[in-house]
Amino acid sequence: MNEPSLYLNRVIQELSRLPGIGRKSAARIAFHLLRQPESQVQDLVKTITELKENIHTCSICGGISDSTVCAICSDYSRDRSMLCIVEGARDLLTIEATGGFKGLYHVISGLISPLDGIGPADLNLSSLIERVSQEKFIEVIVALNPTIEGEATTLYLAGLMEPFNLNVTRIAHGLPVGSDLEYVDSATIAKSIEGRVKV
Amino acid sequence: MNEPSLYLNRVIQELSRLPGIGRKSAARIAFHLLRQPESQVQDLVKTITELKENIHTCSICGGISDSTVCAICSDYSRDRSMLCIVEGARDLLTIEATGGFKGLYHVISGLISPLDGIGPADLNLSSLIERVSQEKFIEVIVALNPTIEGEATTLYLAGLMEPFNLNVTRIAHGLPVGSDLEYVDSATIAKSIEGRVKV
Repeated sequence: MNEPSLYLNRVIQELSRLPGIGRKSAARIAFHLLRQPESQVQDLVKTITELKENIHTCSICGGISDSTVCAICSDYSRDRSMLCIVEGARDLLTIEATGGFKGLYHVISGLISPLDGIGPADLNLSSLIERVSQEKFIEVIVALNPTIEGEATTLYLAGLMEPFNLNVTRIAHGLPVGSDLEYVDSATIAKSIEGRVKV
Repeated sequence: MNEPSLYLNRVIQELSRLPGIGRKSAARIAFHLLRQPESQVQDLVKTITELKENIHTCSICGGISDSTVCAICSDYSRDRSMLCIVEGARDLLTIEATGGFKGLYHVISGLISPLDGIGPADLNLSSLIERVSQEKFIEVIVALNPTIEGEATTLYLAGLMEPFNLNVTRIAHGLPVGSDLEYVDSATIAKSIEGRVKV
């Protein structure tokens, strides 16, 4: 088999390293880029380069930001009595996109996972304690994934928050909206019964 | 909703323009890039830039190439009595990847489609005629997609090849290997009966 283009192969190889992109999708994207005008490809390349050069970690919440303090932490119109703890900056954006939460965030950058050798010391917790002791939060919502690591970290955080006399809550685990009891796994159904609410 | 990073938004927007990538996949790739070391992201950016700068169209077959004549056209160990006509450079690579064809290719860069205003004059056919009249091909295999446009173009090409006294064939249409008669559409089954071969 002859390889007609080394450059094409290189692009396909680099693209197929990205998450969710296999060799066929990578080839499809590469051929798409070939058909695109030079300026459009340059835009893509420029935005990727700029992303790496300009993005920072917010010095307060640990989320991503274009400056040292992110737009959420520096927005004084937000409810500064609520703090939502998330695993990563992506979860922050996911919750923010729903528009249902108007408080502040704290990114702990991981979950406690003894099997992977990740303990509380590896998480962004010292700044959390500092914030919680200095700011006047009324409620702390722990919004971690409903996995074993997420549950363990939630329990650890609840213990960590105890001295500060805060209302510590976690997001509800139960049936996804629009799902069907028949097709939902039994662990989720058990959680939904355990967490039943008064109607 | 606060947008924590303009740079991130721009990358997500650019990435979601690529084929097969929606907003969620784009965000996933953007966060992946953020986590990657600088050098790896530069590799990606460099390969994309180089692709646009260095890739050519082969002056013989019309496929993609790093030089004026592609590796397939300049490979004299290949069977130069067989010519395979394909729609695009991607189809060339797809057939080449199977390793089942050892002849030469010709990319016609499109299909006849009166509804889209694409006629024979818009295709890369003049160089095909030139090649067919000058080179000593014994067989021309038309390997176009089994669509209405593909069939129309195949018939047109068959007419075009007639004066050259060549053996013009087209790839078989029938049941995909590993498929099930029960789940295959009726047009394909009809084609497979029409194109039955002696066992």
